[in-house]
Parts: sequence; C-alpha cells; structure tokens
Amino acid sequence: MLDLQRRIREEGTASPDGIIRVDSFLNHQIDPMLADSIADEFVRRFDNESITKILTIEASGIAFAVLAALKLGVPLVFAKKGNNKNLGDDSLYTAVVRSFTKGTEHSVAVNRKYLSGMDRILVIDDFLAMGEAAMGLVDIVRKSGAHLSGVGIVIEKGFQPGGEKLRSMGIRVESLAIVDRITKEGEIVFQGDNLP
Amino acid sequence: MLDLQRRIREEGTASPDGIIRVDSFLNHQIDPMLADSIADEFVRRFDNESITKILTIEASGIAFAVLAALKLGVPLVFAKKGNNKNLGDDSLYTAVVRSFTKGTEHSVAVNRKYLSGMDRILVIDDFLAMGEAAMGLVDIVRKSGAHLSGVGIVIEKGFQPGGEKLRSMGIRVESLAIVDRITKEGEIVFQGDNLP
Repeated sequence: MLDLQRRIREEGTASPDGIIRVDSFLNHQIDPMLADSIADEFVRRFDNESITKILTIEASGIAFAVLAALKLGVPLVFAKKGNNKNLGDDSLYTAVVRSFTKGTEHSVAVNRKYLSGMDRILVIDDFLAMGEAAMGLVDIVRKSGAHLSGVGIVIEKGFQPGGEKLRSMGIRVESLAIVDRITKEGEIVFQGDNLP
Repeated sequence: MLDLQRRIREEGTASPDGIIRVDSFLNHQIDPMLADSIADEFVRRFDNESITKILTIEASGIAFAVLAALKLGVPLVFAKKGNNKNLGDDSLYTAVVRSFTKGTEHSVAVNRKYLSGMDRILVIDDFLAMGEAAMGLVDIVRKSGAHLSGVGIVIEKGFQPGGEKLRSMGIRVESLAIVDRITKEGEIVFQGDNLP
C-alpha cells in the first residue's frame, strides 16, 4: 500500500536496532483518513472470505478494526490485556503473550460469548514483529472453534520472525507495508524497494 | 440518544451496586453501526466548536473517537496508560488517574508534540462515573494550553459525581445516555424516563 509506505518513510523514524516509530499518524496520534484507507485495503484483500467478525487486541489495533468492521457490517471484538489472574476464568478464552522488547508476559482474554464455532474471523493488528500478540489471538480463535480467515497487519517487520511463523502454519497474512530492513542510517527499506 | 438507551436496556446488565455491563455491543464486542451513530451524535452536538483534535484514552474510547475524527476530518490522539514511571518524562504531558473500583492508580500520558496551544480539543470517552479518567484528560489539555471545547461521553452514571464535577468547572459535558439510577431489581432508569 503505497500511501502508507510514503507516510512511514516521511513521518516515521527508525533505528538500526529495529524500532520503528509511527506515533504521529498511526499509534498515538492517528490520521483517521489514512486509517480509513487502511481499513478499505483490508476489506479489499479479505473480500472473498465471508468474514463474520473482526478480532483485534487493545489498544492500537482498535481504530483500524472498527473502520473495517463498519465497512464489512460485522461486529468487532477486542481482546483485553490483563495480568495472568484471569487465566483460570472459564468464561474466557485466554492466551499468554510474551513481550520480547519489554521482557514481560501478560494474558489476553476474550469472553467466550463473543466467538463461536460458526464465526469466520479476521484478525487485525497494527504491528507484526515477533508475532507473539498475533499468535495469542490465533490461539484464542482456535480455542473457540471458529474459522480463522486470515490476519491483517498494518506494518510487518519482515526482518523479525512473526510473519514467517504465522505463514508456516498455513495462515494467510496480509501486511500492508513490509519493512525489509533498516539501514545503519535509520532509513526504512520496504519489501519490493530493491526490485528492478 | 434513544437508540443507545434501547440497546443498553435490552442488552446491558446492571447491578444495584452501580456496575453496568455493555460488553456485548460497546466495550468488548463493539457494534460498529451503533458506534458510527454515536460518532454522528458527537459530531452533531459539537458541530459549532471548530474542533481541531479529538483526545481519548486507551482502550475503549478509541472506536468512537476514530469514527468522530474521520467525520470531522481532524486527527485523534489517544492518551496512553502506564505506570507512574513516565511522570518525570518531560517529552510528555502526564496526569495521575485513580481507579475507585480497582483501588489502583496509574498515569496517563500524551506526547507534547501532539497537543498545542492552538488546538480546540474534544475529549471523548465511553464511561463517565467518578470522573477520574476524564479529569486526567482535562488536566492534560490544560497543561498543553489548548482550548477544551467539551467532553463527549457515551454513558454517564448520573448517580456518581464525575459529571457534576466537570460541569461545576464550567466544562461542557455531552453524555449520550445518562443513567439516573439502577433499581434493586437491576433495572436501568435513564434521566428523563420519569418525565410525564
């Protein structure tokens, strides 16, 4: 998605250790017009999937997910982050998510009432890096017996293993911008940039 | 907003101790069509205010805020919750928020880059009860020097002091559903229900 790549290049900042900051338009301040185009693109890519529900995780996936849900005319569910206390609560589907950057571990939870074996789920999130948050959501979808139609990601860090992990499980992953690498000077190189 | 009141009455649950659950359509699962009508109503009520930015707090305010931001054509900023570590960080506007229900305290923070003295801010949140989250956002707006145009709330618990606290400060608060009281049987009575 070229608009998105341009904004990341012009307004994002990156450091060679792999940190990409898009705070000014994606995940602290949000440009709603760009968010709406992102939602359009998710809808276009998963149009043939008869999605019945969108699943995301609080907080920064919600903006894209609600816009896509509105276009598809389906409900949105956002998984809640918590401490690990609710892991024993049998009204919930839960999964454990490790954060490699923060060195922490937390649970994510969805009330069982809101996912059913009849659902066809599109998972949406803002970033895909190590894949831990996405794997947590995939785990929850599996536990619910719903069909996982795919995972829609705004920015994938192609130099980290999350995308490969999901795709090697046979999951359809659609990332709107895939960062191939960050140069020593902090320049962001997208997948496809080096093609002739 | 009658549609919203009807949904709260039909799908929400309440207990006499003041807890209102609207998990099935507002703050865990979200009905995007209802969220869009809620955003329309916020836009209608604050139409004359020349809003330049919407401010909300993660996570459950984001869905309504992004839809309203899209309609107004202005950016959305969501304050991030954190521990109190970032209170000394001078790149941020911060405020402390107490949770009466959970007995906890956390900080909320907005990067200084995203609020300016030229902004006219609409604060949006899903619930207004004790008013602590809203007061934190108001505090951040004041620190930034921006003009606070008002506060838009989806559900106000009229039997708790948050709304009065904000209004007594001269702040315009527009709540789309105001719950007057919850009966012993758990029935929700809205402001206006008892009018002839």
